Amino acid sequence: MDRVAIIGASMTQFGQRDAWIRELLAEAGQAALADADVSPDEIEHLYVSNMASGEFEGQTGVPNALAHDLAAMPAYTARIDQTSSSGGAGVYAAWQSVASGASDMTMLVGGEKMTHRSTAEATDVIASLTHPVEYKHGVTLPSFAGLTARLYLDTYDAPRESLGKVAVKNHKNGVDNPHAQFRKEVDLDTVMDSPIVADPLRLYDFCPITDGSAALVFCPESVAREYTDDYAVISGIGGATDTHVVHERADPTTMGGVVNSSEIAYEMADLEPDDIEVAELHDMFTILEFLQSEDLGFFEKGEGWKAVEEGVTDRDGDLPINTSGGLKSKGHPLGASGVAQVYEIYKQLIGDAGERQVDADVGLACNVGGFGNCVTTTIMESR
Amino acid sequence: MDRVAIIGASMTQFGQRDAWIRELLAEAGQAALADADVSPDEIEHLYVSNMASGEFEGQTGVPNALAHDLAAMPAYTARIDQTSSSGGAGVYAAWQSVASGASDMTMLVGGEKMTHRSTAEATDVIASLTHPVEYKHGVTLPSFAGLTARLYLDTYDAPRESLGKVAVKNHKNGVDNPHAQFRKEVDLDTVMDSPIVADPLRLYDFCPITDGSAALVFCPESVAREYTDDYAVISGIGGATDTHVVHERADPTTMGGVVNSSEIAYEMADLEPDDIEVAELHDMFTILEFLQSEDLGFFEKGEGWKAVEEGVTDRDGDLPINTSGGLKSKGHPLGASGVAQVYEIYKQLIGDAGERQVDADVGLACNVGGFGNCVTTTIMESR
Repeated sequence: MDRVAIIGASMTQFGQRDAWIRELLAEAGQAALADADVSPDEIEHLYVSNMASGEFEGQTGVPNALAHDLAAMPAYTARIDQTSSSGGAGVYAAWQSVASGASDMTMLVGGEKMTHRSTAEATDVIASLTHPVEYKHGVTLPSFAGLTARLYLDTYDAPRESLGKVAVKNHKNGVDNPHAQFRKEVDLDTVMDSPIVADPLRLYDFCPITDGSAALVFCPESVAREYTDDYAVISGIGGATDTHVVHERADPTTMGGVVNSSEIAYEMADLEPDDIEVAELHDMFTILEFLQSEDLGFFEKGEGWKAVEEGVTDRDGDLPINTSGGLKSKGHPLGASGVAQVYEIYKQLIGDAGERQVDADVGLACNVGGFGNCVTTTIMESR
Repeated sequence: MDRVAIIGASMTQFGQRDAWIRELLAEAGQAALADADVSPDEIEHLYVSNMASGEFEGQTGVPNALAHDLAAMPAYTARIDQTSSSGGAGVYAAWQSVASGASDMTMLVGGEKMTHRSTAEATDVIASLTHPVEYKHGVTLPSFAGLTARLYLDTYDAPRESLGKVAVKNHKNGVDNPHAQFRKEVDLDTVMDSPIVADPLRLYDFCPITDGSAALVFCPESVAREYTDDYAVISGIGGATDTHVVHERADPTTMGGVVNSSEIAYEMADLEPDDIEVAELHDMFTILEFLQSEDLGFFEKGEGWKAVEEGVTDRDGDLPINTSGGLKSKGHPLGASGVAQVYEIYKQLIGDAGERQVDADVGLACNVGGFGNCVTTTIMESR
């Protein structure tokens, strides 16, 4: 079977944007069309990854509006929502649309407009994904993260500083990402002295609230060759769920959705964790980078923290993680994040990552919804 | 290529339900698993068609919750939203998941919980799909329907009573649908004397606000044969958009999304409109049944109304339309409606439609979002 290729990509400036969701989506969509040198009337399927434009902005039907705004009608459109992993789910939908033969040219645009709402309001919209009983008891995603971080540090005898070093690393990477929300280095003291949010996690262990969008153009590899020599292929992709009620998990330091989705992706790609040369992980909270790096098989259980301490996941390490700056410094516009992860891997694989460039032919993106409730893992290879 | 088969289906009682969206989805999901004789752990992909659980109920992440509630974890899940045609978009997503080889057993559950909100509130949530400028001028879907109905009646010299006869026919069909919200016949006088909502349309020209859900189980035809002799196949499916701003359409009596999506579906199925023997159309407003029956090629432009007058679309006519009772009498729980349309065609094709049974081997479902903003057309055949 023809593999599914990505032939163009874009991401907008992430941060506090003076633009509504429709404008953000159109901005990324137009840029990706230009990058791929594809005209809007070539688009057959147009997917939008977005969690909550209705809740944030009172505007639904945004995929239809985007088809209109991009002059891509009568392209088929739908919105793909998987809460904070809507972007990864959109990548899977776009992959399926091409792999099934339904579309020979698919665009995915992921985006979210959040900063016009207060942090409390935005957090409350996100918290609506949790189980109502847990939600009413205040066990929101940040508090789960705090509880899990405490458990991880205790269980694996990891120093609190190792979490801080994730923030330091990702902020350092973000300096070289022109689209990142925060382009400034932070030192470990700053992280360790920042206000406590959910003990033991502090302000710098959390990603910000962000506006932004990102887009990708997919087609069969046979079609890709007609457009460009600079394409990457998706060689493995899989998705999986874990319990909705987080307290039902046997071991909260293991993310079942990451384990199961990556198993599917590795098998499809016929690759092992050791084959991955660059990865974008969903560091909504610093602790999540440890959990994913272990559950993806990069490191033994309980040893992800050592990799950060030893510089293995630095940009010049053996397995660079979050060269983009991650959600931590790049920002986390819910529906855009999973798309922007694949944007980064695509740029790395085609050798167009600028100052962030690493030497890699195989990359992986892991997009996590909720507290690992639903996960999509995508493995990509240079052509 | 292996065709995509449907091997099981369910729909819940439609109407005013004392159950939240999670319960409604689980009810349909469990019933479809039982109908298909498939165990939850066989489900690889689980899609949820739903427009607005966040806006209606403050609960997002419902696909993940459903995977949990059905004990279908770690099945991959995502929510598919295409506003009022989320169900049809879900059918397309489920089809793609099987046709792409990503899943050998996919469940789709569509549902919406609406009646706990006032009609004004519910209508406002739906209206959030329209263009903000049109919305702020009060040009909501019902008013578009009124304007379009007036234009249609004037242009094609159709009597106002012909619209009323759509309501009479669909109510009559709904009497034999045990899941329908309204199981009562109405006569033409009742329809014609009902209160005006958007001139010339009256109360009985509109579908109600509804709670409910429906579910389908999809797999490759080769797998279907291992489970049952009573399956149907999707032989053609396509989707398309029309302008988001309705006033930009050259002719509001033509639904471009219906024309374009059905063209794709007919070509894929290698069938003509004349080959269709039973159809479920999206009669959110009576006028839409005329427009779709013409834009799908069943009747010449401007002659759909004659077919209703002449009984062609009655259950015992040449081309029965909305044997289920349609949205008009069955009800319209947004995310469920497109799934319930395919449920009806499936039941007709496997000969399990009870009192509603017609003689058909080829059926079509047309699910419309907004005022034709986005449309999915599905053609099915008995095995």
